[in-house]
Amino acid sequence: MPEPGPREVLVEIAAVGVCGSDVHYYEHGRIGPFVVERPLILGHESAGRVAALGEGVTRHAVGDRVTLEPGVPCGRCRECRAGRYNLCRDVRFFATPPIDGAFANYVTIHEDFAFALPDAVSDEAGALMEPLSVGIWACRKASVSPGDHVLVTGAGPIGLLAMQCALAFGATAVTITDVSEARLELARRTGATRALHAGEDVGEVDALIECSGHPAALASGIAAVRPAGTAVVVGMGPEEDATVPLSLIQGRELWLTGTFRYANTYPTAIDLVAQGRVDVEAIITGRYGLDEAEAALNAGREDPANVKAMVVPRR
Amino acid sequence: MPEPGPREVLVEIAAVGVCGSDVHYYEHGRIGPFVVERPLILGHESAGRVAALGEGVTRHAVGDRVTLEPGVPCGRCRECRAGRYNLCRDVRFFATPPIDGAFANYVTIHEDFAFALPDAVSDEAGALMEPLSVGIWACRKASVSPGDHVLVTGAGPIGLLAMQCALAFGATAVTITDVSEARLELARRTGATRALHAGEDVGEVDALIECSGHPAALASGIAAVRPAGTAVVVGMGPEEDATVPLSLIQGRELWLTGTFRYANTYPTAIDLVAQGRVDVEAIITGRYGLDEAEAALNAGREDPANVKAMVVPRR
Amino acid sequence: MPEPGPREVLVEIAAVGVCGSDVHYYEHGRIGPFVVERPLILGHESAGRVAALGEGVTRHAVGDRVTLEPGVPCGRCRECRAGRYNLCRDVRFFATPPIDGAFANYVTIHEDFAFALPDAVSDEAGALMEPLSVGIWACRKASVSPGDHVLVTGAGPIGLLAMQCALAFGATAVTITDVSEARLELARRTGATRALHAGEDVGEVDALIECSGHPAALASGIAAVRPAGTAVVVGMGPEEDATVPLSLIQGRELWLTGTFRYANTYPTAIDLVAQGRVDVEAIITGRYGLDEAEAALNAGREDPANVKAMVVPRR
Amino acid sequence: MPEPGPREVLVEIAAVGVCGSDVHYYEHGRIGPFVVERPLILGHESAGRVAALGEGVTRHAVGDRVTLEPGVPCGRCRECRAGRYNLCRDVRFFATPPIDGAFANYVTIHEDFAFALPDAVSDEAGALMEPLSVGIWACRKASVSPGDHVLVTGAGPIGLLAMQCALAFGATAVTITDVSEARLELARRTGATRALHAGEDVGEVDALIECSGHPAALASGIAAVRPAGTAVVVGMGPEEDATVPLSLIQGRELWLTGTFRYANTYPTAIDLVAQGRVDVEAIITGRYGLDEAEAALNAGREDPANVKAMVVPRR
Repeated sequence: MPEPGPREVLVEIAAVGVCGSDVHYYEHGRIGPFVVERPLILGHESAGRVAALGEGVTRHAVGDRVTLEPGVPCGRCRECRAGRYNLCRDVRFFATPPIDGAFANYVTIHEDFAFALPDAVSDEAGALMEPLSVGIWACRKASVSPGDHVLVTGAGPIGLLAMQCALAFGATAVTITDVSEARLELARRTGATRALHAGEDVGEVDALIECSGHPAALASGIAAVRPAGTAVVVGMGPEEDATVPLSLIQGRELWLTGTFRYANTYPTAIDLVAQGRVDVEAIITGRYGLDEAEAALNAGREDPANVKAMVVPRR
Repeated sequence: MPEPGPREVLVEIAAVGVCGSDVHYYEHGRIGPFVVERPLILGHESAGRVAALGEGVTRHAVGDRVTLEPGVPCGRCRECRAGRYNLCRDVRFFATPPIDGAFANYVTIHEDFAFALPDAVSDEAGALMEPLSVGIWACRKASVSPGDHVLVTGAGPIGLLAMQCALAFGATAVTITDVSEARLELARRTGATRALHAGEDVGEVDALIECSGHPAALASGIAAVRPAGTAVVVGMGPEEDATVPLSLIQGRELWLTGTFRYANTYPTAIDLVAQGRVDVEAIITGRYGLDEAEAALNAGREDPANVKAMVVPRR
Repeated sequence: MPEPGPREVLVEIAAVGVCGSDVHYYEHGRIGPFVVERPLILGHESAGRVAALGEGVTRHAVGDRVTLEPGVPCGRCRECRAGRYNLCRDVRFFATPPIDGAFANYVTIHEDFAFALPDAVSDEAGALMEPLSVGIWACRKASVSPGDHVLVTGAGPIGLLAMQCALAFGATAVTITDVSEARLELARRTGATRALHAGEDVGEVDALIECSGHPAALASGIAAVRPAGTAVVVGMGPEEDATVPLSLIQGRELWLTGTFRYANTYPTAIDLVAQGRVDVEAIITGRYGLDEAEAALNAGREDPANVKAMVVPRR
Repeated sequence: MPEPGPREVLVEIAAVGVCGSDVHYYEHGRIGPFVVERPLILGHESAGRVAALGEGVTRHAVGDRVTLEPGVPCGRCRECRAGRYNLCRDVRFFATPPIDGAFANYVTIHEDFAFALPDAVSDEAGALMEPLSVGIWACRKASVSPGDHVLVTGAGPIGLLAMQCALAFGATAVTITDVSEARLELARRTGATRALHAGEDVGEVDALIECSGHPAALASGIAAVRPAGTAVVVGMGPEEDATVPLSLIQGRELWLTGTFRYANTYPTAIDLVAQGRVDVEAIITGRYGLDEAEAALNAGREDPANVKAMVVPRR
């Protein structure tokens, strides 16, 4: 049982989502420069109840239901001061070595990175504020605007939530692509205006949100973007480099960028779910106890229809 | 019967909305620097069917249902080149002296300012793309974003549509204020999360969209805006000057701006209505034949519950 | 002699500028909601040498010459996270009650708010990074861009530095206005392309930076701004409210905002001075010892030609 | 002798710069999708004197000295309305098949695309407003801001002018790289704070402006950009695709874009030169008569020290 430090809260975890990065650490022991060198508790999509307060906490009371933004930045470096705290090099982020994560009964976190959940948002939905934040951030980077046609490539958990976000941002057409019919079917049920097999022609779009990590999806997705539109790369592929259609980027003055986590998204995420604009629970395809965490980690690899596994410690 | 010039289409008008500016010209013969010096056909919220094509038209065919963006800018001046064509000083705008408007059986317009209507959008809804554009433009200026709380002051036709636009832009809370209970009730029916009598406390909001033209609404509305938020003035009051809380604008670094018509809104407006994101027809409270135009112009003044009168020439 | 806390540095002050707000506190004991209730050390424009290091300091060494950003924000609130740390409600700002300032031999500050000065920047110039930051921030808010014509109203220390900043931002014409011929002459010597007596016609400008606090300067300045241009209010007048030409703001879609301190400006300020783009020392019109601080505070009131008094403790 | 149409001016050409695209058309007969199928007059960097006025011209008088913005867009399409007229698909652009250019004694152009030259700007400088516009546009896309450190890769005419533009935008450090010592020396003479041989380490920069067309310059240049910075590709390489460091783009949330011509740059370009902020004539390395145009086209290929050849018809 960890002790909450000054301005920290102790949170009893009620639900944790399994993310592809958890699976990757579990299988490979590293993600790029982040290497697991000691036993590491995974899990960074979490919600729970405040169980104790550290010194000086004023924002929460014991018993409050909260979702946890898993990265606590330094608050003072150039990136933090500029409002880009997701790029802080001194961030302490759950389940990124050497910081432990939330596949646990209890965690501690700075009170300002715990956000109160309204009654309309369940614990499991609360845990999914984290991948939803990834989707919100991608839509912000893509400047998704009312009336836009957005292409989301990849219908995994991030792609499915980015798709719902795009609709919540006012996009009136969202095309999603994948190789899995099960995932496309889930996309249709959760609002996609069009769900296509990867490789089919999509016409012209205002923005691309690439969530598959596939180089071909990126290249063909960029080629679909209208002049002055934006392509945002969320999915991480196996290679450090990628081939992009540079003459198109020049001739159409496209913008290409990528996302790294998110900043200033949690209040928005909570509001969107509380008001029914996004249905995060729709992507949950399996629930596991804390002692079944390994099965939860393996679920997605076994069947692409297993989109999002939730670990529920008290199950 | 006007003759369409090169690249113009002749449009048989199917529906025209009555705007407050029409009423103002009718009653006062001027709006600020724009003075009616000769007989002027009013009406600038219109939709209809293409009846004939001028030389070189390629964008439309006879029979197409279209809505008309009523201002055709010069396309070459500093403002036009910068994409701010609503500020073009050489714009020719329906029902702004000396340009005639659309309370007529037929009008001509450059083909690029007629926009095809999908089947999901009625003629009357098509006519209302114009005031909807005012709402879209206000939301763009206010940078309305998902999760925002927006305050709309004034529940006339523009306020009611700006409110729906804010929701379509992702705002999860929209408070609207007015002095008319009938208008507040219509606001509630069309999605307002809160409809208050003018003067009630609204708390903190991310943005203000002022649509009433009342100086008090502007001053108190600005005082409700959060640090770094925006106040957009759409409503025109009786005075050229206004008193604003400057020390708040400075201390919170607020942004205050106003709107003059709109630019690049029609495709968005059509998509939002076609996809059911905005219900423009909900604000229609009366329909009149072309020979009843005077009654249509008087309707709003007689009863604030008469929000939007439509003139339907073939009625 | 204060003790530096964790991550704080002790700085021996070498130069402090006198700001109008210091004078105001000295004369009136308050500025708006900020009331001096106990003895308060004034001064927030300061530079000096690091004399001792608190625990954990890594950014500076004893002997380093530094300029001090006088406001240390909380780093965690909504405003801080969004990069708007100047709007942090929990900021601790030098010489704003109850926080003491820098008219002292020694002060302490968090190491991240002390910035190293290159040899090309003198101690006095270092102290003036603070008012220069106000000018930079105003130019950012005004979106001053290469080729712009900028109007600066008021040729006090802030107006004079904002004028130089506008030139450094690429403005090719900067008109400055004042009622004091001595100040206008100083403006001409420091680069103003035009220096006019307040009230003279200035033609059309891309942006207004209001530094005089005079309501008439604001109203007439706004009237000079081109369509879609920006008016930034820096000067604080005697009244909380102001009368603005609202119909112009609407008809031209102008943007009106105000500034409150600044954020993320110190590195830029230092670079601009080090590279000779801005000459901050040109506005210094008097130097005083620490025991002459009262005379320094009175200097500006006695003669408008006394633009910027510097307190030099070791003088 | 061409006849000026309505709102066109006839311009007697006084100076025309030779651009790499002219050379490319001359040698290869095409640039990407633009193929020379009939005899084509090259040259699109031009200035001269108004020799006659078409019907309805009000902006110029016979004898006026003007520079010519060589692309006249349609003014009505989606891109034009949005202010992105450089992306207009119906633009008529000098020396882009099938539109003739300015290696001629006389040309005609719409009066709004001829800009008056002040006395401080020579004819040759006037002609170079075109490549200067490319540099301005690149700096705008790169959001070059005061205090920035900018990397320009490639010290040909565009790179050299982009470098000067970056300084005029307030950058306090501009590093330029090339393989030619002669070009680096010219860069140093015209203000580069650092001129390095391609491949040397440049440290961290705020923005990259790639002007060499070399894939390696792009890849290594991107790797130098700070978190959240921008890389703008101006130079056109031999391949349609490029390999970029995608994991860096994601991990640092970089922005990559390209430029295609420019929009709304001519007034800025003229002001910058007239005020001495940019010295365009410094890059002129050879002058040729109209009958020496072939030699002018070949000059750059023969020696990289030949940066910019000017054709002076009356020479």
